Amino acid sequence: MKALHDKIAKEGLVVSDQILKVDSFINHQVDPEFIMEIGQAFANHFGGQNITKVVTIEASGIHLAFATALKLGVPFVYAKKKKALTQTGGVYSAPVYSFTRQESYHLTVSKDYLSAEDRILVIDDFLATGVALRGLRDIILQAGATLVGVGIVIEKSFQPGRKELEAEGVQIHSLARIQSMSEDGILYVSDEATL
Amino acid sequence: MKALHDKIAKEGLVVSDQILKVDSFINHQVDPEFIMEIGQAFANHFGGQNITKVVTIEASGIHLAFATALKLGVPFVYAKKKKALTQTGGVYSAPVYSFTRQESYHLTVSKDYLSAEDRILVIDDFLATGVALRGLRDIILQAGATLVGVGIVIEKSFQPGRKELEAEGVQIHSLARIQSMSEDGILYVSDEATL
Repeated sequence: MKALHDKIAKEGLVVSDQILKVDSFINHQVDPEFIMEIGQAFANHFGGQNITKVVTIEASGIHLAFATALKLGVPFVYAKKKKALTQTGGVYSAPVYSFTRQESYHLTVSKDYLSAEDRILVIDDFLATGVALRGLRDIILQAGATLVGVGIVIEKSFQPGRKELEAEGVQIHSLARIQSMSEDGILYVSDEATL
Repeated sequence: MKALHDKIAKEGLVVSDQILKVDSFINHQVDPEFIMEIGQAFANHFGGQNITKVVTIEASGIHLAFATALKLGVPFVYAKKKKALTQTGGVYSAPVYSFTRQESYHLTVSKDYLSAEDRILVIDDFLATGVALRGLRDIILQAGATLVGVGIVIEKSFQPGRKELEAEGVQIHSLARIQSMSEDGILYVSDEATL
């Protein structure tokens, strides 16, 4: 997605060869108009596949899922990293180890909001190791729902997330795919321009 | 806001005289079109006051802030409950005790995203004790920014949050103000119909 590449070039900051900081427009301060463009890009790609619900993970996926769900005309659900007091009914749950936070947590979704009839589009900001997304996939399977695809804003293609999810049959659409990065710049996966 | 009262009547669940569950449309599963109506209501109320930025707290305020910021044509910032690895610069920070979670945490906002020129609208889903919002007010004051007002979706008017914030000079606009609630129903503050 050219607008995303341009925005990363203008505002992104390569902190290390592993960490790209995009918190001026995606995951701390947010540019709502730009996020609506991202939602439109996901809606364009997945729009013909009878999506009934968008699912993401709190907190940094919420506005991305919101924009996509608004464009698709469906509700969205955000998986929680802790069980809330108001989750009084049963939940689907999956354990996840966060490399970023260096801690384990349980993703949960109330059983009320996923059903076997649902056709799910998962949206998230980053794909790196893919462990959180694999947890979310487990939850969707527990509900008997169909995981139609995964939409990612920025993929770290040098990490194993895409490969491992694809090995499980998951269709992934990433708006930017980073091959490698350093203080000299960012190299995108070569077929990126065609996405 | 009549549409909100109607939605609460239809989908809300009074769990106890303290807890109202609205997780079918606000804070777990989300109805994006309805949240856009909420954003429009806040934009209508605060639109003439030269707001430069909307600020909220992760995770459940994010989509509400997004919708409001989109309608106002400004960016939004979500305060984090943990310092992220990508928050490499300095942060404004305030300690908060969560009665819901029964734990303490630090709210943080990167110094890059609040300035003395900013005129801030704070948006959140619930106002009860107001401790998180007072933490956020501290952060805004640390930045030297102006807190123009606070927009709340559901206020528990039987709790001290509004009174304590108003004593500090904060202007609050709540779309639904609950006087009391029980399994028999919800009683709203009497002047609510005029909001």
